[in-house]
Amino acid sequence: MASLASNQTISVAVIGVGLVGAEFVDQLLALPAPNPFRLVSLSSSKTSLLSQNGLSFSSQGWKSDLAKSGTQPGSFSDLAKELSKLVGPNQKVVLVDNTASEAVAESYPAFLKAGVNVITPNKKAFSGELSLYDDILSASAASGARFLNEATVGAGLPIISTLKDLVTTGDKILKIEGVFSGTMSYIFNEFSPAQGTGPAFSSVVRIAREKGYTEPHPADDLNGADVARKLTILSRYIPALRTSLPSGYKSVSTRSLVPAELESTASGDEFIEKLPAFDETFDKMRQEAHQEGNVLRFVGVVDVSSGTIKADLEKYPVTHPFATSLGGSDNIIMFHTERYGARPLIVQGAGAGAAVTAMGVLSDLLKLV
Amino acid sequence: MASLASNQTISVAVIGVGLVGAEFVDQLLALPAPNPFRLVSLSSSKTSLLSQNGLSFSSQGWKSDLAKSGTQPGSFSDLAKELSKLVGPNQKVVLVDNTASEAVAESYPAFLKAGVNVITPNKKAFSGELSLYDDILSASAASGARFLNEATVGAGLPIISTLKDLVTTGDKILKIEGVFSGTMSYIFNEFSPAQGTGPAFSSVVRIAREKGYTEPHPADDLNGADVARKLTILSRYIPALRTSLPSGYKSVSTRSLVPAELESTASGDEFIEKLPAFDETFDKMRQEAHQEGNVLRFVGVVDVSSGTIKADLEKYPVTHPFATSLGGSDNIIMFHTERYGARPLIVQGAGAGAAVTAMGVLSDLLKLV
Ligand SMILES: NC(=O)c1ccc[n+]([C@@H]2O[C@H](COP(=O)([O-])OP(=O)(O)OC[C@H]3O[C@@H](n4cnc5c(N)ncnc54)[C@H](OP(=O)(O)O)[C@@H]3O)[C@@H](O)[C@H]2O)c1
Ligand SMILES: NC(=O)c1ccc[n+]([C@@H]2O[C@H](COP(=O)([O-])OP(=O)(O)OC[C@H]3O[C@@H](n4cnc5c(N)ncnc54)[C@H](OP(=O)(O)O)[C@@H]3O)[C@@H](O)[C@H]2O)c1
Repeated sequence: MASLASNQTISVAVIGVGLVGAEFVDQLLALPAPNPFRLVSLSSSKTSLLSQNGLSFSSQGWKSDLAKSGTQPGSFSDLAKELSKLVGPNQKVVLVDNTASEAVAESYPAFLKAGVNVITPNKKAFSGELSLYDDILSASAASGARFLNEATVGAGLPIISTLKDLVTTGDKILKIEGVFSGTMSYIFNEFSPAQGTGPAFSSVVRIAREKGYTEPHPADDLNGADVARKLTILSRYIPALRTSLPSGYKSVSTRSLVPAELESTASGDEFIEKLPAFDETFDKMRQEAHQEGNVLRFVGVVDVSSGTIKADLEKYPVTHPFATSLGGSDNIIMFHTERYGARPLIVQGAGAGAAVTAMGVLSDLLKLV
Repeated sequence: MASLASNQTISVAVIGVGLVGAEFVDQLLALPAPNPFRLVSLSSSKTSLLSQNGLSFSSQGWKSDLAKSGTQPGSFSDLAKELSKLVGPNQKVVLVDNTASEAVAESYPAFLKAGVNVITPNKKAFSGELSLYDDILSASAASGARFLNEATVGAGLPIISTLKDLVTTGDKILKIEGVFSGTMSYIFNEFSPAQGTGPAFSSVVRIAREKGYTEPHPADDLNGADVARKLTILSRYIPALRTSLPSGYKSVSTRSLVPAELESTASGDEFIEKLPAFDETFDKMRQEAHQEGNVLRFVGVVDVSSGTIKADLEKYPVTHPFATSLGGSDNIIMFHTERYGARPLIVQGAGAGAAVTAMGVLSDLLKLV
């Protein structure tokens, strides 16, 4: 249906071309012909390109064109206005937000109201205040524009789509339990292997940082907020829990692994330097777990019947999948449901990385075709 | 968008109301209002109900109404003609085939040509002759009607959707490896546990049959054809392998576990009676595997670079996820891809059962909304 495809061109505006964003644009441009999408806008925080009829790029490629554009990005409300002009009965328009920006997240209701679909790996809008989330839902319901956020949890892994399928087909979610942070996965796979002994906690964190697995300031991973955000996103798809986290991730019961004494450490370097002073505490926890036949894993748990939503360091038997089948910086998520009964539905694999995250974003985009 | 929903009612015709079909109808009717679907036809092999404006049921329920209908089902081409009358710009029509019938499968091109979408857990059409598959593809391309078959592999598990997402976003599939048969999973989880010893093969098969995990004639599971069919379905979504199985599952290199001497055993009872004579062979394989630190699993492998597609009994180390994390009649499927690198994307869980299979069918149907 070549004719149908050309009628139905979908206009795409991309905000944020960092690690994920750049890979996303490359994947989008590499789709086989006939490519159902045309890029109408690209912006970093400094420069932007916009063309209602679709951008075309010089032989140097889009990165160089964007860098040279000289046009500063306008306001989000101006962009929403521009994009709304492209919306029509056979003309879909999508904003792809590849930033981690709170400001972009807060503009989703405006885009959705204007009939612009929103697709993003940015967790901010869905894991913050319930009021913003409600605004997103009602803007989407009013215009029919959709928001899709598969890559916010587990990157390219089918987590949110699976949860939505379970819920919309009438299954009852009993519990979701998983290792949701690639960084925490790596750290505890190394620190607390089945055989019980391993390197000091601080040295695992240092190496993880050197490998680029942590944020520049490792406290941003160790505080558990990333896991709490992901639990918030999932909980809001479960009818019984939709409104149970009024302040989003801040309402999640979260264990921070940042020692109280290091909470105000300004730089990542300083944090790494001071962390060895706390190795003994972590080592004691590991030993205790080992004596009980357990390993330590930093997990997220959503327990529907008790209403518990927590990000915590927990012990699991050395025979548990969290101990036996995890490696690298894998995520693993178990869905315990009424229909699946005693044995959960499990999804596992890399939960971070530009290529798989961009893929999660692109697969959402392909759902609009 | 209540108005939009009522414009966009999707008409659904269901063929086959056995285990999966009956559960599917129940799940469909239980969707919360506004239900975007209306049932226009229901048929078993003996009776049928049809109403262009949507069936309504007596207080005794649809099963009793269907049983009492007295109307024999017409031909598939008549049904396709009837359904095509309902197809319109805002009016989608879907055939849901919940049979295992070859005849229904062969009629998909006619339904698709008539603009009727086809959704099914029936493996026959996608795992048989390539010519039928090609007819399905071209009928779908010509009319724009879609065929969705998530539940043909892994029942309600997100296997086909994950594979499609990987392929369409430009990832390269390197290898797919998994335990695809719930029956074979149960049999070898019991027969070949990590500790190496277990009950005799024939007694595991007998118990599996008593629990309803096997077909009435266990040879229909042990011949490996079900796994070969699933591998065919997956392979055809991989561009490099699309045409590599001209005769479908018959082209897959398949190890049958049915002893040659029992191949012509007519009844399941007789098969079970004669199987103990072969326990020694199976026990020897198990012992040999155990001495090497392995377990036995009946798996399916699609190796893209070598073009190997096989259903076979293989050995896996006792530390491998196929040994450590499987239980019950779980399926587990590993996708090795370029983007996922050294650590595969894994999906695991029950791969059979009426409730989860019907859910896979219903989640496909919800994709049309
Ligand atoms: N990386 C992963 O593995 C992963 C996995 C799952 C989810 N995510 C999520 O994906 C998003 C992107 O992650 P990333 O790793 O690509 O981060 P990144 O490399 O830091 O890229 C973010 C980009 O957003 C741009 N940006 C920030 N504010 C902007 C604004 N107002 N207008 C336009 N551009 C703006 C920045 O541009 P400048 O450079 O010009 O400031 C930067 O290039 C984040 O929300 C992250 O949480 C990432
Ligand atoms: N059960 C599972 O766990 C599972 C899992 C994955 C996939 N599947 C697939 O799902 C499909 C249904 O499985 P099932 O377990 O529900 O099988 P089932 O209980 O045997 O039901 C099949 C139904 O199809 C009906 N049928 C056969 N030919 C027909 C025709 N020409 N017109 C109308 N109805 C016809 C039969 O009706 P009559 O009784 O009137 O003959 C029967 O009720 C199969 O393709 C199976 O491979 C099943």
